[in-house]
Amino acid sequence: MRSQINVAVIGFGTVGSGVVTILMQNADVIARRVGVPVNLLRIVDVDITTDRGIVVPAGVLSTDLQATLEDPSIDIIVELIGGSDIAKHVMVSAIAQGKQVVTANKALLAIHGEDIFEAAARASVDVGFEASVGGGIPVLQSLTRGLSANRVSSVMGILNGTANYILTQMSTERQGFQEALNLAKACGYAEADPTFDIEGIDTAHKLAIMINLAFGTPVNIKDISTEGITGLTTLDIDYAKELGMVVKLLGIAKLYDEQVEARVHPTLVPQTSPLAQVHGVYNAVHLVGDAVGDIMLYGQGAGSLPTASAVVSDVIECARNVLIQASGTIPALSFQRNQRRPLRLRPMEELMSAYYLHFMVLDRPGVLSQIAGILGAQGISIASVLQRGRQEGQPVPVVITTHRALERAVQTALHEIHALSNFVSEPTTLIRIESQE
Amino acid sequence: MRSQINVAVIGFGTVGSGVVTILMQNADVIARRVGVPVNLLRIVDVDITTDRGIVVPAGVLSTDLQATLEDPSIDIIVELIGGSDIAKHVMVSAIAQGKQVVTANKALLAIHGEDIFEAAARASVDVGFEASVGGGIPVLQSLTRGLSANRVSSVMGILNGTANYILTQMSTERQGFQEALNLAKACGYAEADPTFDIEGIDTAHKLAIMINLAFGTPVNIKDISTEGITGLTTLDIDYAKELGMVVKLLGIAKLYDEQVEARVHPTLVPQTSPLAQVHGVYNAVHLVGDAVGDIMLYGQGAGSLPTASAVVSDVIECARNVLIQASGTIPALSFQRNQRRPLRLRPMEELMSAYYLHFMVLDRPGVLSQIAGILGAQGISIASVLQRGRQEGQPVPVVITTHRALERAVQTALHEIHALSNFVSEPTTLIRIESQE
Repeated sequence: MRSQINVAVIGFGTVGSGVVTILMQNADVIARRVGVPVNLLRIVDVDITTDRGIVVPAGVLSTDLQATLEDPSIDIIVELIGGSDIAKHVMVSAIAQGKQVVTANKALLAIHGEDIFEAAARASVDVGFEASVGGGIPVLQSLTRGLSANRVSSVMGILNGTANYILTQMSTERQGFQEALNLAKACGYAEADPTFDIEGIDTAHKLAIMINLAFGTPVNIKDISTEGITGLTTLDIDYAKELGMVVKLLGIAKLYDEQVEARVHPTLVPQTSPLAQVHGVYNAVHLVGDAVGDIMLYGQGAGSLPTASAVVSDVIECARNVLIQASGTIPALSFQRNQRRPLRLRPMEELMSAYYLHFMVLDRPGVLSQIAGILGAQGISIASVLQRGRQEGQPVPVVITTHRALERAVQTALHEIHALSNFVSEPTTLIRIESQE
Repeated sequence: MRSQINVAVIGFGTVGSGVVTILMQNADVIARRVGVPVNLLRIVDVDITTDRGIVVPAGVLSTDLQATLEDPSIDIIVELIGGSDIAKHVMVSAIAQGKQVVTANKALLAIHGEDIFEAAARASVDVGFEASVGGGIPVLQSLTRGLSANRVSSVMGILNGTANYILTQMSTERQGFQEALNLAKACGYAEADPTFDIEGIDTAHKLAIMINLAFGTPVNIKDISTEGITGLTTLDIDYAKELGMVVKLLGIAKLYDEQVEARVHPTLVPQTSPLAQVHGVYNAVHLVGDAVGDIMLYGQGAGSLPTASAVVSDVIECARNVLIQASGTIPALSFQRNQRRPLRLRPMEELMSAYYLHFMVLDRPGVLSQIAGILGAQGISIASVLQRGRQEGQPVPVVITTHRALERAVQTALHEIHALSNFVSEPTTLIRIESQE
């Protein structure tokens, strides 16, 4: 039996600081769970002089990445650099040295996951990546272990705290998108360049990882239809409220007839839905399995300590496996590698969904009947119509919700309606509705 | 590498039928996750003639428990008999034969857990018991793995679907307790003898298991203060609503200064709390760790298939471990056995809580001031007073909520108030309030 397990943390930023804090402050609890101490042997960063408010033992800080990756006394490498180039190098080099690896890097996994998991399987090492989806919420282990007896049919969630914070502010404080984004930056909830968060890219990365584990299929991130929240207005959020719904940025993946539907977009959900109750920077994941029914997991999806909580839980898992010499034996992607099967990703135009359509039309007689006629001709059934404010000859909003319809038909109808450009004055806002209809 | 893993299910009742259904219907998915087929070799029950609507392969059904326990070709024994005597025999015998064991039996574990885990540790076999708390919700693995980096400070939850269904009916349909209980029985949500569910005993069993995993301490079920929901009236539920709260039967355990507070009782929670949104037979568990912050897990806490989902996830875990010959290596109770430490269980009188007190008093001048005076003398600060309906000289309800106070002081005050029996006409209803105050 080994007398301790040695860990190196690569990247001493926000999450790295959280990991270092937990490994030091909770060393006793961790040792009681693992059986031997989990020792923080090395922290590597290009900057080891900035004061991060954490006192680390002498000799732990280093700038020498390569020496750390090659140090035979290190059992587990924790990659927290972010980005995908050096991060991939760290992962692949550590795996080649037979070390267990842990990462929180969803972009890395969504883009280079196949290479990394292939290398890890060959080297029989563990890849821990619980922190890559849902921060501290145990989402991935719920798919890999908790729901392993199920045919999972749906994974859906609020996977980005920045976007959810902005939408919550827009909804509860009636702030505009830009104002809410600025506040998110001021509070440290949004990065200087928030593109990945507000354009849905971060959500798509996380969804891709969940699809792998839930459905046992590889997925190309480029094939996931991804739409962000930058086009949303408070007007739409107000109309949503009037319709008994709230707008959330959801990542949604479902399995139908051995085909995968995968998409990221602003979504209207009923106010009574558990997802509607998820406010601010909180995340939530909703899973459906044939045996378990529906499960929801809720918690802080980002931030230094919550994310580090998941990272260190993976370190503990790796440490337990090193001790019993069982590393690399539980399939990282839940399905055995030779049992993964490429499934067809349905194109967006095949989606069946209910829709919210917000038209700006000139207030003239007959306009509504023309719109309704075009929708009807495409087989789209109207569920409700809201028309507020009247100004003869001026643009007024008309909000129509539909029953479930084919995306292709809806896009065709919108195209036709806009072709009749004599009464539609602005681009139409389309928001998909997720309900149990 | 073994070519298959053999499982025997002992007890072909509600959960047993669910387990058999999943093992047969999802055999392909399970094999893709484990690497080899998980084969249902035997189902043992005293009754193998009743039609349960499931076609099982010839030769699988048996009444011979002992032969099954001793069959060397069986790797995993699933105990689903219920009760604690024969169930314990099944578990201990199977462990003695070196088999992995899985159970959904919380009463068994709450009462005989120490013996069973001790025997399993000696024999180096796995004990799977995820299904014993929260049905299909992955509660226990979240404590053992997901939150393993944390000092857990609080576990709290709606752990009994029957009681939650009754409280939901009382709240939304304004049914009385007995009417709601009868409906629960008619819907199959309550057993013929619902004592364990409505008296909080089942919740206490589950709480005891969670305390073990969360705090690394053994706990004697008899030491958990346990109060059921039989004394609740619709009047109290109406007053709760007026105060912006709902009544839930909660199991609550917290760690303070290396002491454990553990209790089961009807509890008022704010309508805005996530736990307040848990309706009907759903369960939810709220966990707090120093790194992760707060996490909530939500889903179906009972029923044949949801419970079986957790049972079979444990079977899969055991099967993976048998294949890699790593059985019994991850500590079943999250902490290593020699690292568990008996912690003092705080007696109820040391509890600090806010309280809801519903007095029935004769409507006479000066009564409220006498009550307030006695509360004040005990250092109890009043947060709100509700007094509805006036009938001079007749009993009327007076509802008082308090700020956080010591349980001992509250009980003493109630004793004194009742001693002045000239104006208190009926026993006082006390409900503890769980809020973030």
